[in-house]
Amino acid sequence: MPRERQNEDSILRKIADSSPSSRRRGSGPPVALGIGDDAALFRPKPGHEMILTCDWFLEGTHFLRKKHPPDAVGWKCLARAVSDVAAMGGTPRCFLLSLALPETHTGRWLDLFLGGLRRASRKFQCALAGGDTTRRNKILINVTVVGEVRAGRAILRSRARPGDILYVSGQLGEAELGLQIVRRSKGAASKKSPLTRKHLYPEPRLALGQWLVKKGLATAIMDLSDGLSSDLPRMCAASAVGALLERAKIPQVRTPDPALEHGRDPIQLALHGGDDYELLFTVPPRKAKLLPKTFRGVNLTAIGRITRKRELLVLEETGDARQLMPRGWDPFRNKL
Amino acid sequence: MPRERQNEDSILRKIADSSPSSRRRGSGPPVALGIGDDAALFRPKPGHEMILTCDWFLEGTHFLRKKHPPDAVGWKCLARAVSDVAAMGGTPRCFLLSLALPETHTGRWLDLFLGGLRRASRKFQCALAGGDTTRRNKILINVTVVGEVRAGRAILRSRARPGDILYVSGQLGEAELGLQIVRRSKGAASKKSPLTRKHLYPEPRLALGQWLVKKGLATAIMDLSDGLSSDLPRMCAASAVGALLERAKIPQVRTPDPALEHGRDPIQLALHGGDDYELLFTVPPRKAKLLPKTFRGVNLTAIGRITRKRELLVLEETGDARQLMPRGWDPFRNKL
Repeated sequence: MPRERQNEDSILRKIADSSPSSRRRGSGPPVALGIGDDAALFRPKPGHEMILTCDWFLEGTHFLRKKHPPDAVGWKCLARAVSDVAAMGGTPRCFLLSLALPETHTGRWLDLFLGGLRRASRKFQCALAGGDTTRRNKILINVTVVGEVRAGRAILRSRARPGDILYVSGQLGEAELGLQIVRRSKGAASKKSPLTRKHLYPEPRLALGQWLVKKGLATAIMDLSDGLSSDLPRMCAASAVGALLERAKIPQVRTPDPALEHGRDPIQLALHGGDDYELLFTVPPRKAKLLPKTFRGVNLTAIGRITRKRELLVLEETGDARQLMPRGWDPFRNKL
Repeated sequence: MPRERQNEDSILRKIADSSPSSRRRGSGPPVALGIGDDAALFRPKPGHEMILTCDWFLEGTHFLRKKHPPDAVGWKCLARAVSDVAAMGGTPRCFLLSLALPETHTGRWLDLFLGGLRRASRKFQCALAGGDTTRRNKILINVTVVGEVRAGRAILRSRARPGDILYVSGQLGEAELGLQIVRRSKGAASKKSPLTRKHLYPEPRLALGQWLVKKGLATAIMDLSDGLSSDLPRMCAASAVGALLERAKIPQVRTPDPALEHGRDPIQLALHGGDDYELLFTVPPRKAKLLPKTFRGVNLTAIGRITRKRELLVLEETGDARQLMPRGWDPFRNKL
């Protein structure tokens, strides 16, 4: 198959064509002007604040070229950044895509990547507004997402208060286990196992975040991207509080997957595994009874409480409390 | 000197501390919530549209670790993206910084980089609102800038009309010549020569862009980042027009710098040199007399006109017209 020689303009056209609606001007909010000019124009809703977030997604650091399917790379680079909007209780509106590619990847790989990205863009109702492309030996991706929330209504991670009950959505550690399966796979990973799917195609908890804002139930929210043991200390530091986790309550991977035999302990996966993109949030005790056990099929589990004393403890099933050490994902410590 | 072991959180703290104002909440517009949460919050001005733009700035592609001073890397990564806001006639408000660094560069290099970034941030009145950091062998930078313009008032590159006079600000080719000097330097480049300064510390033409919007003089604007011969075809394609340049009118490098003897012809530098961040804009003939010869010390030069026929011609001093070939910067063709 002859490979067309690409240049920057032809790659930009390919990206723009993959998302036709982003090109129109005057097609109504939110993107007033999409790809093709010096910058994009976005029309904010009156009375709303903009949520701004960006995320790296880099070959070798966040994904492996030979093991992660291109469409999963496309899906996940957007899902990760959208998850930060979910963690503020906001609604994603549009995104900018910065892409650096080897010339060998401007054909089929790029098409599949854009397919996954387009599916995510539709699912999260977040339109491609612009970006930047360049050539590079390694695949480098950076995504900026712009979201919206009513002015003053965003839920910060810094407002957890002593006595608040600490909740988490979903199961923890699934994505980490999925990553272990992907790492061991020969060639591109299977997309069929629910565990690899959780790692490859995470679903940010947008509806849950928006519902928590609407109902005024949560004092603080953040998303779990690096793992509970690394992210909880960040929420506690931002809120100037501590926390006591109950080990027995932490929702863990329940799977007959044989990978577990070779893998790690489910509680270790739940405490330290990254990439779950579940929400960690705090609810005052008097409001806790208003919180359902599940929200749209996703479990909401109380896993502990916020304490005045600024320390992080895990209550073991023996009744002993030991200190929680941050052992989640840290790019300055971990390798993929 | 003992090197402190850094992790992601300590690097984030260093970045946040370098820009203290970005941390406050409720300190008034535009950044309602800066570094430290899942995302930043930005309060748009009523009646305004947001301008969104992002730019790669990558070691080896856009700068050289050993030759480009770290503070120039900090300045330029922001200046490049801000230039896209100038090209819409807008006002920059805040930016997100995505930074990937080797661990060896989280000390002095990062401090100097943040110093240059802070100077640019103050100069362009564009506050650091958030970002993402990770570890990487090569230094990777991506900057997203959020700007503002009154709704419907942004000047696009797609509105040039046949008959419009084509203008350019400043001199063209200076930055390219500066790059040639930087390339030949042993070790870090001198910051003293006006040519290397134009390459290392470009100044986006914000005031000019805003003034053109305010006075309603320009039909189309874009910034020259890749070189006139590559950027003009983009403006013409977006506007479905052609252009006739007059070679003798193109403002070229006028310098006794001995580098020119070894270097390229000034007209070649002016046509194909990148990184000038000057504005290219079109003005209807009846309004051309309202345009001053200089704006705040920067020359504004008529270099040709827009034509109905969709071809790009250069009128030589001999009276012959030849076709303009895009030979500016293309990351899929050029190497630094």
